[in-house]
Amino acid sequence: MTWAFRHRTLPQRVTFAAEAMPEAVAAEAEELGASRVMLIASDRESAQADRIAEQVPVVLRHDEVVMHVPVDVAGRARAAAAGSGADMLVSIGGGSATGLAKAVARDTGLPIVAVPTTYSGSEATNVWGLTDNGIKTTGVDDRVLPAAVVYDATLLTSLPRELTVASALNALAHCVDSMWGPRTDPIDQALAQEGIRALAAGLTGFADAVGDERLAGIEQTLYGAYLAAVSFASAGSGMHHKICHVLGGMFGLPHAQTHAVVLPYVLAFNAPNAPGAERRIAQAFGSATAGAGLSALRHTLDAPVALKDYGMPEAGIAEAVTPIMAAIPAGNPTPVTTDSLTALLRAAWSGDDPDAVRAGHDNQTGSQQQ
Amino acid sequence: MTWAFRHRTLPQRVTFAAEAMPEAVAAEAEELGASRVMLIASDRESAQADRIAEQVPVVLRHDEVVMHVPVDVAGRARAAAAGSGADMLVSIGGGSATGLAKAVARDTGLPIVAVPTTYSGSEATNVWGLTDNGIKTTGVDDRVLPAAVVYDATLLTSLPRELTVASALNALAHCVDSMWGPRTDPIDQALAQEGIRALAAGLTGFADAVGDERLAGIEQTLYGAYLAAVSFASAGSGMHHKICHVLGGMFGLPHAQTHAVVLPYVLAFNAPNAPGAERRIAQAFGSATAGAGLSALRHTLDAPVALKDYGMPEAGIAEAVTPIMAAIPAGNPTPVTTDSLTALLRAAWSGDDPDAVRAGHDNQTGSQQQ
Repeated sequence: MTWAFRHRTLPQRVTFAAEAMPEAVAAEAEELGASRVMLIASDRESAQADRIAEQVPVVLRHDEVVMHVPVDVAGRARAAAAGSGADMLVSIGGGSATGLAKAVARDTGLPIVAVPTTYSGSEATNVWGLTDNGIKTTGVDDRVLPAAVVYDATLLTSLPRELTVASALNALAHCVDSMWGPRTDPIDQALAQEGIRALAAGLTGFADAVGDERLAGIEQTLYGAYLAAVSFASAGSGMHHKICHVLGGMFGLPHAQTHAVVLPYVLAFNAPNAPGAERRIAQAFGSATAGAGLSALRHTLDAPVALKDYGMPEAGIAEAVTPIMAAIPAGNPTPVTTDSLTALLRAAWSGDDPDAVRAGHDNQTGSQQQ
Repeated sequence: MTWAFRHRTLPQRVTFAAEAMPEAVAAEAEELGASRVMLIASDRESAQADRIAEQVPVVLRHDEVVMHVPVDVAGRARAAAAGSGADMLVSIGGGSATGLAKAVARDTGLPIVAVPTTYSGSEATNVWGLTDNGIKTTGVDDRVLPAAVVYDATLLTSLPRELTVASALNALAHCVDSMWGPRTDPIDQALAQEGIRALAAGLTGFADAVGDERLAGIEQTLYGAYLAAVSFASAGSGMHHKICHVLGGMFGLPHAQTHAVVLPYVLAFNAPNAPGAERRIAQAFGSATAGAGLSALRHTLDAPVALKDYGMPEAGIAEAVTPIMAAIPAGNPTPVTTDSLTALLRAAWSGDDPDAVRAGHDNQTGSQQQ
C-alpha cells in the first residue's frame, strides 16, 4: 500500500533558446569557468560550429564523428582533448556527437555542454556507449552526463518529416515503457506523462505546420524527447524495449519502425494491470483511454502497423518467444506467459487490433493473472 | 511563440521507505562513504534518533534545535561538528532540524541526509535561513541542499490533523504559485502539477482514514510537499506569496491560514490569463476548472475563508496595497492595478466568492488587460 522506492535526480542545466544557441552555449561556458573549449561537430554541423566558435574560446575543433562511437574514434578524440589542454567539451549534433563527447568525458572528467540536433535524448542521460568490431558496450557513469544542454528548435527545422516522426515515436515508447520499467517510481512516471503530452502536442502540431507554429511544434517535441530520456534512464527498460531489442537483433528489423509497431500491443497488454499508467497516459493524450490516445496519434502520423511489413518472418514469432521471456523484467504489470507473449507477437506481426491482446480480454489465450 | 528558459535540476536522492527509515539512512551513509555521523535531532525525536544510531556510526548527537535557526545556535552546532570530525550530517525533524543541518553544511560542506517529520519541504531546496535578533536572513547555496532525503510516512502519523492540513495547504500554495513565479518554466509547472495531484489525493484520502489507508495518504502528502518545494525553489515567489508575505508582516497574521484564505483569490485573478496553469491545475484536481478543484478541496478540508477572521483590520486593505504592488513580479499573468488589487484584498478579507475577482469578470473594478 505504501511506496518503497529511491529516485536519483541528476544535476543538469537545460536551456531552451530558439535562435539563440551560441549565446546560450557561451553562458554555460562562463558558468563553468571554461576558457579552453574542445568543439565536437561533424562536417555537417560546421556552419553551426562556426557560430559557437564566435562566442566561446575554442582551442580545438574535432570533426571525426562516427555512428555508435567506435573505440578507435573515441581514442583519437581523447588524445586530441589531452593534447589541447581543453577544460570543457561542446558537442553539436545527434547521438553520435554527444556520444563522442561522453567517451572523452568518461576518461577526462571534462564537463560537456551538448547542443542536440536530433531527438535522440542522449544528452539527458548518464549512459555511454562504445562499439568495438561492431559489438556495442554501454555503461552508466555520472561523469558523462552533460553539465548543460542547449536546445534550439531552429537547428531541427531541416530534419525530414519521416525521421522526425520515427525519432519522436521512439521517444514516446521511452515514456510509455518508463511507466513500468524495473526501477520506475512516481517521479519517473510524472516526467514521462509530461513527455507524452509534449510529444503528442508537438507531433500533431508541426508535421504540416510552417513558420513559428512549426518551430513551436519542434520545440515541444524536443522537450518531450528530453523528458523521455530523463525518465527512461531512471526507470530502465521495460517490456516494450526488451521485445524490440530481441526482435531487432534476431531479424535485423529497423529500429524506429519496430518500436512504432510494437508499442500499442505492449500498452494494451499491460494497461489493464497498470491503472496508474493507464490514467497518466490517457491524461497526457487528453483521451478517454491510453490506447485510444496512442491509436489516434499513430493514425495522424500514418505510423507503421505490422512487423511483417519490415522483414520479420512468421516463423520468427515462435523463435523470439524464449529470448524475450528471459528478458522481460519480473515486475511487469501483466505477468507474461509463453502463450500470451506468442499472441502479442502474432498480433504485432500481422497488424491486428491491439485490443486483441489486452490482458483479461476474451480473445486472450494466455493464462496470466487478471 | 517559442520558449526562452533555463532550468537547473539539482542533484538529490529521494527515498520513500515507510517503516524502514533507519535502513534507508544507513544506505545513504554507505553511498556517501561516511563513517562519522553528526546526528541532529531535538529531544522530541530522540526515539527515532536512537533507531538511526543503531544503523549508522554516530560520533555526535546534537539536540539543540531551535525554530528559525538563531545564529548562536548555528554557531554552536558548527563548532560541535568541527570538534567531532564528522563527515556527514543526519537531521531528523521539521524545518528547524533541517535548517540547522543546512547552517552547518553551508560552512563545512558536509553532506546532509535529511529525514523530515513535517511537510515543510525545506529538505528539497538549496535555500538556507538564519535569524539574528529576530531578523531572518535567507540565501541560496547548493552546499545546503541535502544529498539525500528519506521519507517515512510512519513518522508523521501523530501530527495533528489541523497542522497537517495547514502545512499541506501551504505546500499547495507553493505549487499553484510555481505556475507563474518569476523564473517558472514547463519543468517547474509539470512538477507542480504532479504536486497538486498528490496533495489533493493525499489530503482527501487520509484526513479521516485509519491504518494503511491513512499511511498511504500521508505518503502522498509528503510526496506532494516534496514536489512543491522543488518547483517553488526553482520558479520563485509569485503573486500569492508576495501578498501573504506583506500581509503577514504588516498585521501579524497566522502564516498557514493567510495562505489558505488568499490562494483561491490569486488563482481566480490569474487563471484567465494563464491558460496553461489553468489546464494543469484543473487536470491535477481532476475537476472542470482550476478554481472548482481548489474550492472542492477547501470545502472538504473546512479551510479558513476570510482574513477578517484572523485579525486583519478592514483599514489594512488600503494600507497593504502599495507594498504589495511593489512586490508583485513584473511577469504576473494578469497585470495588477491598485484597483484590482484592492478588490482582491477586500474579497479575501470578507470571504467573498473568489470568482468576483476573476480577471475579466463583470464585477471586476480593475482596468487590467484582459
